[in-house]
Amino acid sequence: MIVVMRHGASKENVDNVIKFIESKNRVAHVSQGESHTIIGAVGESDIDPREFELLDGVKEVVKISSSYKLVSRIFQHEDTLIEVNGEKFGAGHVGMIAGPCTIENEEQIEECARLMASYGVKIIRGGAFKPRTSPYSFQGLGEEGLKLIRRAADKYNLAVVSEVMEIGQIPLFEKYADMLQVGARNMQNFNLLKELSKINKPIVLKRGLSATINEWLMAAEYILSGGNRDVILCERGIRTFEVATRNTLDLCAIPVVKKLSHLPIIVDPSHGTGLRDKVEPMSLASVAAGCDGLMLEVHNKPECALCDGAQSLYPEQFNELYKKLKVLAPVVGKTF
Amino acid sequence: MIVVMRHGASKENVDNVIKFIESKNRVAHVSQGESHTIIGAVGESDIDPREFELLDGVKEVVKISSSYKLVSRIFQHEDTLIEVNGEKFGAGHVGMIAGPCTIENEEQIEECARLMASYGVKIIRGGAFKPRTSPYSFQGLGEEGLKLIRRAADKYNLAVVSEVMEIGQIPLFEKYADMLQVGARNMQNFNLLKELSKINKPIVLKRGLSATINEWLMAAEYILSGGNRDVILCERGIRTFEVATRNTLDLCAIPVVKKLSHLPIIVDPSHGTGLRDKVEPMSLASVAAGCDGLMLEVHNKPECALCDGAQSLYPEQFNELYKKLKVLAPVVGKTF
Amino acid sequence: MIVVMRHGASKENVDNVIKFIESKNRVAHVSQGESHTIIGAVGESDIDPREFELLDGVKEVVKISSSYKLVSRIFQHEDTLIEVNGEKFGAGHVGMIAGPCTIENEEQIEECARLMASYGVKIIRGGAFKPRTSPYSFQGLGEEGLKLIRRAADKYNLAVVSEVMEIGQIPLFEKYADMLQVGARNMQNFNLLKELSKINKPIVLKRGLSATINEWLMAAEYILSGGNRDVILCERGIRTFEVATRNTLDLCAIPVVKKLSHLPIIVDPSHGTGLRDKVEPMSLASVAAGCDGLMLEVHNKPECALCDGAQSLYPEQFNELYKKLKVLAPVVGKTF
Amino acid sequence: MIVVMRHGASKENVDNVIKFIESKNRVAHVSQGESHTIIGAVGESDIDPREFELLDGVKEVVKISSSYKLVSRIFQHEDTLIEVNGEKFGAGHVGMIAGPCTIENEEQIEECARLMASYGVKIIRGGAFKPRTSPYSFQGLGEEGLKLIRRAADKYNLAVVSEVMEIGQIPLFEKYADMLQVGARNMQNFNLLKELSKINKPIVLKRGLSATINEWLMAAEYILSGGNRDVILCERGIRTFEVATRNTLDLCAIPVVKKLSHLPIIVDPSHGTGLRDKVEPMSLASVAAGCDGLMLEVHNKPECALCDGAQSLYPEQFNELYKKLKVLAPVVGKTF
Repeated sequence: MIVVMRHGASKENVDNVIKFIESKNRVAHVSQGESHTIIGAVGESDIDPREFELLDGVKEVVKISSSYKLVSRIFQHEDTLIEVNGEKFGAGHVGMIAGPCTIENEEQIEECARLMASYGVKIIRGGAFKPRTSPYSFQGLGEEGLKLIRRAADKYNLAVVSEVMEIGQIPLFEKYADMLQVGARNMQNFNLLKELSKINKPIVLKRGLSATINEWLMAAEYILSGGNRDVILCERGIRTFEVATRNTLDLCAIPVVKKLSHLPIIVDPSHGTGLRDKVEPMSLASVAAGCDGLMLEVHNKPECALCDGAQSLYPEQFNELYKKLKVLAPVVGKTF
Repeated sequence: MIVVMRHGASKENVDNVIKFIESKNRVAHVSQGESHTIIGAVGESDIDPREFELLDGVKEVVKISSSYKLVSRIFQHEDTLIEVNGEKFGAGHVGMIAGPCTIENEEQIEECARLMASYGVKIIRGGAFKPRTSPYSFQGLGEEGLKLIRRAADKYNLAVVSEVMEIGQIPLFEKYADMLQVGARNMQNFNLLKELSKINKPIVLKRGLSATINEWLMAAEYILSGGNRDVILCERGIRTFEVATRNTLDLCAIPVVKKLSHLPIIVDPSHGTGLRDKVEPMSLASVAAGCDGLMLEVHNKPECALCDGAQSLYPEQFNELYKKLKVLAPVVGKTF
Repeated sequence: MIVVMRHGASKENVDNVIKFIESKNRVAHVSQGESHTIIGAVGESDIDPREFELLDGVKEVVKISSSYKLVSRIFQHEDTLIEVNGEKFGAGHVGMIAGPCTIENEEQIEECARLMASYGVKIIRGGAFKPRTSPYSFQGLGEEGLKLIRRAADKYNLAVVSEVMEIGQIPLFEKYADMLQVGARNMQNFNLLKELSKINKPIVLKRGLSATINEWLMAAEYILSGGNRDVILCERGIRTFEVATRNTLDLCAIPVVKKLSHLPIIVDPSHGTGLRDKVEPMSLASVAAGCDGLMLEVHNKPECALCDGAQSLYPEQFNELYKKLKVLAPVVGKTF
Repeated sequence: MIVVMRHGASKENVDNVIKFIESKNRVAHVSQGESHTIIGAVGESDIDPREFELLDGVKEVVKISSSYKLVSRIFQHEDTLIEVNGEKFGAGHVGMIAGPCTIENEEQIEECARLMASYGVKIIRGGAFKPRTSPYSFQGLGEEGLKLIRRAADKYNLAVVSEVMEIGQIPLFEKYADMLQVGARNMQNFNLLKELSKINKPIVLKRGLSATINEWLMAAEYILSGGNRDVILCERGIRTFEVATRNTLDLCAIPVVKKLSHLPIIVDPSHGTGLRDKVEPMSLASVAAGCDGLMLEVHNKPECALCDGAQSLYPEQFNELYKKLKVLAPVVGKTF
């Protein structure tokens, strides 16, 4: 934390700040500038900069941003590579996850799995527990859904990723899924993150609707600090004033995260835009911006989907996009 | 849902939309205007307006906003009045909740309870489980903290409100607390909300950092729809681009909510502003705007607080504010 | 500007930053902390912190916030008091500006002026040039409108405030108006601000839709730095994700601005909320939060208004509110 | 405009709404649904939906979004192609504009022009009048700057684009520039837009910091409706809560605008990100997303730039990026 004193702050003001820093068991480093005096207070433990803003003579207080460690590129310089069922994310590889928003019934998930496998996809997505804004909306098939997607995936040699919503559901996911997804609304469900840090499967951690990149990396730190190093970050749009799209996809988060962290970052343009016809341009843009993978919603019959059909690709659309991505990736130096 | 056709859309376009509506088991109501054709599709079940946006000839699609029922003022015209330990929220009453951010140790919580009681407060707040952005920050005393606040509260005839973070903690709160608080990060933790709908204690439901008022009311609907009618909504600031304050307190949410719902709405200006010297003006403003209560952070020694000391009032400051509120409330027709 | 070096940054990294600072003709002040080295570069001229972020070993760079001088409370400790036609803003006084959104015709503005005067209002508002999102909307009566409001105001001993949209219109406002308003969309129209700094009439400077408080004060600095000290800041809502209201009224801007600056700050709850029935609670809240005045839209027949009728008060509603404000102001230590 | 009546609204409520619509000289179209009655009021003139929200029995009111006409793809189905000095924007062509943020002196702009021409660039950018947040920052060279960039451009056969800040400056730009840029802060300076609608040079219209796509297209409509059809839209980032980048570049605006309008849309990733090392990934992403051009800041010596050096590319960096874009464009079906 750094305290910038006001131009003209008295010696008494400065001494008062120093004394306060020392009362917090920190060492104060004073630097007397031409127009401002700057006082640094560095150390490991927490200190709340706002406490200083209220002291006399203080112009502003700057917090050195919260220190994730394990997720930082300082801690580990090389990209983390995560491989699931032969599909690679990070370290120059672009991986693909595709499938329906929701597991609806045996026939639907079977058909989706068959289609995905036929296009070369190795990891299928599908929700069994659905976070829904309204208590009166379809809430997912639960364990039955997980069984259905597991069976379909096994038949076509696919891995399964699905969203876990609370601690009590973890055993089910240990049994039926290969990767666990944490949804945007749960990004700061710290108790859930702590439990996920103890399991042995990769976690896809979606960015919260109003989470800064720093908060997102701190959420990942919860998982790594408990022992699970396999976290894939997933950008899925932030909430802004713009209403033309469901969310505002923040693609610049890709190079920002790649600089700060060694973890792979993928993009979900289906939720990020909310409209099927925006998924292709945003998928291409994501790969061009340097992402390590994509998570796409595809449905065998989008117009009949129980949830989010409007943002689901038709199978043939997905196939066309998949081919374009294969051409694009090498142009930006990636393997896909 | 209402589909507005583009000026000049063909009859075929219109028929196509009607057919699609009917395939969803809805009745289409067509209204041929001067410049636009409008097609309504009303009914109880979900329908995703975005599916229509992609059809030819469609200008825009409008969703009739999601229908909370039990929280609505249509469903219940009179204000819900919630009373805890003699303190009233709603129906013309302004209630007060005050206490430290976090339960730190026996001496601190005891002293806080003594002070609160001496000022006339009837409900004390204090966190035992703390949602912290960093895994390396103090995470609260847990059950030990709940025991301490209960003991202190009993000594001074206070009721206790504290934040529950996950389903597994509910039994502890049933034992030690009189009201349960759901934090902003958990406002859409739907599994938690469902469980809280089954208990017999009032819930303080904080607004999510980027939650619209409609989403907030839908979250309350989760609790009411399971059988627990005692929900107090708590505005605590939303995330915007402004950095001068921790959050932007949306005080206009008060009259908006009062019009839409019968539930009491209180304000937490401590989290909403993040700075002690902004708490008094925002508390007065909240009451003037018509809120049904306040939740304030007060600490016996704010400069030593383990968490959020900068936004905690000094006991004497709180006492002064409390007196001013007593004068202000009747001016705007409220009992405090 | 303060450069925080990464934990483990090399001596060469540090020297490189120092050399770069010196190449900008600044003095570098190095403070070697336990875990981080901090380098300060203070001085008057501009320096762009982002240039340093790209240097090796740099963790983050912090800009000491841009320095408005003349608007600052450091520069002038006492509140600026602005008086127009006997109505006072600042230094403990709450002033009132009221009138229709737009000057529509002679009869309307005459009747509005008569009503305002009958309630005790001393300053009437009314737009002659209207900033409209669509080129096909009514754009105001122009000079004819200014003549009409001047004549009506003179008849009832009122002062006139109206919005100036571009430099070429200034002479008209010098002739017909007593105060000039700069709209939210023009808050950073720096050429206009510079010209307004040369005139002798008070300026009401509305906050931009996405302007931080710091940018707003810098815009006021443009006017003061050219010689015009009579600026009244006007909070009118910021743009956020919330759609229940037209804008989000940021009432905490009141205590924030009062601490940073000596200039009066008033609130426009009509534009800030966009709905007539939210104007009363937000007006009361603004005064309770410590504002120095209000600007309200009142129309003799709101349902016939050419513009913004939905946010205009009925005359009788305004009269009721005016009386309530008279009771409330002394409770928070203000004269109204 | 569409009025949705509440479930259970009385016949009297419905009649009242109809009467009010008719008082505005509109025809009301009533559609009686199962659970809601919907009343449409279509027509050309303005009607403010909020006036209806305050009537009894009204659930919500929906405005059919404001109708730009000339910029719409309905009005003109084929892409508008704008060509300046042989550089094409739109209709499958990706154009390039590059150069320094600000014209600093003869040597700098000469050298920038020489470099740009050597890489194949045909349009140079450079600011003569600079919108600066602080009145104490460098405000640009003014007319002298325009003379310098014109001379340098002529020497190397380049066209010139520069930012016009107010009506009084237009004659200078008519004399020295080939394209005029409207900055983000002036996007809704409607008087300026109207004057620009009368000139014969293409306009680059930057998106406002908090402008919706709809407002942006309405601003373009101001220019087209006055007779100037050559408008290039420029996405340059919107203001959000994220602070890791200067702005949040909204790349999904590209496919959204391409669907709604025939006008070319280009991207300015220099302002959009604010950091040099984010310019390359965001440029590649923009082209992959389907943009019609790029506007990039390049400086012969970025570390000495008077303004925005941190977001300016080094000449060699620009050259590398330019080559990559040449490879990428055909992959997404564009000519560059």
